[in-house]
Amino acid sequence: MADVPAIDITSTAEWSALAEHHEAVAGLHLRELFDADPDRPAAMTAAGADLVLDYSKHRITRDTVPLLTALARAAGLPERTEAMFSGKHINTSEDRAVLHTALRLPRDATLQVDGQDVVADVHAVLDRMGSFSDAVRSGKWTGHTGERIRAVVNIGIGGSDLGPVMAYEALKAYADRDLTMRFVSNIDPTDITEATRDLDPATTLFIVSSKTFTTLETLTNAQVARRWLLAGLGDESAVAKHFVAVSTNAKEVSAFGIDEDNMFGFWDWVGGRYSVDSAIGLSLMVAIGKEQFGEFLAGMHAVDEHFRTAPLEENLPAIAGLLNVWYVNFFDTQTHAVLPYSQYLHRLPAYLQQLTMESNGKSVRGDGSPVTTTTGEIFWGEPGTNGQHAFYQLLHQGKRLVPADFIGFAEPNHEVSVPDGGTSGDMHDLFMSNLFAQTSALAFGKTAEEIAAEGTPAEIVPHKVMPGNRPSSAILARKLTPSVLGQLIAFYEHMTFVEGTIWGIDSFDQWGVELGKVLARQLGPVLSDPEAHTGGLDASTAALVRRYREWRGRSV
Amino acid sequence: MADVPAIDITSTAEWSALAEHHEAVAGLHLRELFDADPDRPAAMTAAGADLVLDYSKHRITRDTVPLLTALARAAGLPERTEAMFSGKHINTSEDRAVLHTALRLPRDATLQVDGQDVVADVHAVLDRMGSFSDAVRSGKWTGHTGERIRAVVNIGIGGSDLGPVMAYEALKAYADRDLTMRFVSNIDPTDITEATRDLDPATTLFIVSSKTFTTLETLTNAQVARRWLLAGLGDESAVAKHFVAVSTNAKEVSAFGIDEDNMFGFWDWVGGRYSVDSAIGLSLMVAIGKEQFGEFLAGMHAVDEHFRTAPLEENLPAIAGLLNVWYVNFFDTQTHAVLPYSQYLHRLPAYLQQLTMESNGKSVRGDGSPVTTTTGEIFWGEPGTNGQHAFYQLLHQGKRLVPADFIGFAEPNHEVSVPDGGTSGDMHDLFMSNLFAQTSALAFGKTAEEIAAEGTPAEIVPHKVMPGNRPSSAILARKLTPSVLGQLIAFYEHMTFVEGTIWGIDSFDQWGVELGKVLARQLGPVLSDPEAHTGGLDASTAALVRRYREWRGRSV
Repeated sequence: MADVPAIDITSTAEWSALAEHHEAVAGLHLRELFDADPDRPAAMTAAGADLVLDYSKHRITRDTVPLLTALARAAGLPERTEAMFSGKHINTSEDRAVLHTALRLPRDATLQVDGQDVVADVHAVLDRMGSFSDAVRSGKWTGHTGERIRAVVNIGIGGSDLGPVMAYEALKAYADRDLTMRFVSNIDPTDITEATRDLDPATTLFIVSSKTFTTLETLTNAQVARRWLLAGLGDESAVAKHFVAVSTNAKEVSAFGIDEDNMFGFWDWVGGRYSVDSAIGLSLMVAIGKEQFGEFLAGMHAVDEHFRTAPLEENLPAIAGLLNVWYVNFFDTQTHAVLPYSQYLHRLPAYLQQLTMESNGKSVRGDGSPVTTTTGEIFWGEPGTNGQHAFYQLLHQGKRLVPADFIGFAEPNHEVSVPDGGTSGDMHDLFMSNLFAQTSALAFGKTAEEIAAEGTPAEIVPHKVMPGNRPSSAILARKLTPSVLGQLIAFYEHMTFVEGTIWGIDSFDQWGVELGKVLARQLGPVLSDPEAHTGGLDASTAALVRRYREWRGRSV
Repeated sequence: MADVPAIDITSTAEWSALAEHHEAVAGLHLRELFDADPDRPAAMTAAGADLVLDYSKHRITRDTVPLLTALARAAGLPERTEAMFSGKHINTSEDRAVLHTALRLPRDATLQVDGQDVVADVHAVLDRMGSFSDAVRSGKWTGHTGERIRAVVNIGIGGSDLGPVMAYEALKAYADRDLTMRFVSNIDPTDITEATRDLDPATTLFIVSSKTFTTLETLTNAQVARRWLLAGLGDESAVAKHFVAVSTNAKEVSAFGIDEDNMFGFWDWVGGRYSVDSAIGLSLMVAIGKEQFGEFLAGMHAVDEHFRTAPLEENLPAIAGLLNVWYVNFFDTQTHAVLPYSQYLHRLPAYLQQLTMESNGKSVRGDGSPVTTTTGEIFWGEPGTNGQHAFYQLLHQGKRLVPADFIGFAEPNHEVSVPDGGTSGDMHDLFMSNLFAQTSALAFGKTAEEIAAEGTPAEIVPHKVMPGNRPSSAILARKLTPSVLGQLIAFYEHMTFVEGTIWGIDSFDQWGVELGKVLARQLGPVLSDPEAHTGGLDASTAALVRRYREWRGRSV
């Protein structure tokens, strides 16, 4: 607990100052704020690594960020940041270091934690991953029949799935497209059935990712995959040629039939939702190659360095996290929209749901006392421009205040000109014009007077009024590359950490997911056995289970 | 306006009664509510068509639903429902009828609207769609080179995309898997590039879905697709063999090179987000065939009939919509989670985002006066069990109250047994046990006393406490079939309508999406032309545009 100041953040003078400031600012419209201070964009744009953050379209004045950074200092953010990077056990409830940042340290860095040379350990695994990836990509690795691998199926769930699949989708333009990549996570039998239906066992490789090698979903899917493989290839010895593991449980891995040489490990200081840059990213490395995976890690490290060293007032993750606190705790927002203007980033919102909500969806502080504020918000979103034709109506004219991140890139991954047409010839320009237009429309809206002046019938005017004053960040980079994706991930990781630090919670545990697992394990046999008692269940769940059994023809 | 009572719902006695009731109920825990009334599940389960809704795990007593239905009557729900079904112009701001329910009327039904035999019109289009689908599926339809079609690419956005792609993904198990189905929506050049990269122009058919045939995204993608086709096939006459349109703009469709015989129309009383059952569903019909598409429509119609005729107290969409009002307006919830326990339903949350948020993200009532309550909530979610390993932590232990829909099916689409393993042999049982377990854990939680009694160290106990009292609905059906999917869609359509009716808003317009489109069209050329003035833009957007141009090497 030593590194977390045991303070109630709402009792600080800094909190009171923010509350007072909020009273003064909350009623102002962004139109007024920009009129009063036209130089806001220059003052409210920060850069770190290759990322640029324009936060001028937030409901803040020039006083706001300094008040927020003062709060961060009161909460001990600088000390806690240093404690994280240096390997202190800031995951207090589990008494663990939190060292995803060590996973992307360069080979020549040094970090000793709990008496262990962490950098050497990390690079030893990376090197083994690199050799494996090279072998699969080059065709040197062959399956049971001597054929090269054409399809890689990652089996994992949560952090062992969302990171790899999100990053693979994001970096498809950099991947070896002759390799088919699939990601199986759900214990719904549909998932593994669909993933394997058109694959050939002789050319398919499974990566089974489960730290403990006991995760119900992952091991169930792995067993089904193993049977599918053996049905095609006939021989138990084929398993070692078609399965590898990302795990630390050598015993179970061997029992499954996987060669321990093909087991890639990690450490208890890597949380699942912070693990895409560990061996959990093996499928991504196979897809994009070890060099580009190295660039991905280097991008993360560049933002780590920025976060660790830049003054809070110029620090992207700090500013973003503190602005979230500003809205959540002072404007009572409950959600945060993530709107990537890149179809390749279509799984980023789902990835960030785990990262942010599993981290900060907590009700007690590090010391076990109840939080005195609300905590983590709900992250959600879809890529633009798709969202514009779906839910943006609510963002523009609904009754909810939803701070939004607009993420975009200057250069496209594919140069496409638009044939014909009276508009611009560059398709990416058309695309990005939407990002810029949306941030403007949200912020400034359109008044009844402006709408009436266009000749709109009086009875329609109120329906067309755009209130504006809806805050957003623009997060831009030159191009979506492996490095930039790594930077975005690290940006959001540290943003999440900043919020958790203000709230005084342990952003690295997840005790709340245990009970459901336990209950599901108890319920499985009750569903299968028509005679199993439902008496121990609550009345509603018991009735649901009985209906299920009846519908499946299992009534007694 | 005639059909919408011009009342402020918060001024009614029924609203006051609910506010008073909320005072009495809000502090009660579901543990207490179930202890006091163990027969809740029987009393709080409703069935309609093939759907069963258990709403007993909501924070209500037996008095709540009657108070809510009284509110619905005060808001004129029965009259407004009848007005919708009979074709009155309840979309007042656009002076249009709202007749998605007419799209699924059986052939022998009768409905005259504005002097037109709607049923005959609908079935005439359905018959043409059926002939077309048959031709593509059978191979009778051939491309420019005489080969049959192997891939169908739907180009559309918003309602012209989300319905078809969601339903296709949901009903994959019923589709002709020899046809590759793709869905292109985003104006990001990535989307069309990725969708066509491994297709053969000679065997690819595009369905261009845009009512006006002027939607920027759709027509831009269609033009790029047209060029791709001609690059492969060489001859302009190929367009007519490889493109069909879902549109009402015959002139533009012809100009594109599409044969008017291959244009499938619909009507101004079909809103985009209510259109999957119109010609917009053509790609779905091609995938699953006209007979199963007919079952899909019949499922929708069955829920329409249920909604129109069942007493409000036994009416699934009414109960669900009114419970949402209960949380939104009395518990200040801002979001609603949709958690389908079916990987096939992975796009249902995105589909429902458009349906609900574009419909009810409004701030003025039908008569243009400001709403006096908050309105539409943010719908979000991911399939279980994936979400359990991502954001359920927040649902269980976070500070947000998030009412959740758990959707599940007794019978799997694929029978898979689990090899080995000490658990149940049926994979679907394992899967569904999670749904039941989660609803129980959310509702009842686990107390500090229970956790301590298990021997948990005192300092860890507060971290493991599960507060419970988190409400959810269980929505069950025997199996995910075309009919059941149709039922689910109609259920959510009417639920959305019920909420909009209580709030007095027009759930069928979407004025708030216009401004962004206008601004984007203005901005496109400014991005492309380094000399274009940014002076008319707000300072922030101007700075973003200048940075974009600089990064693209377009600075003056």
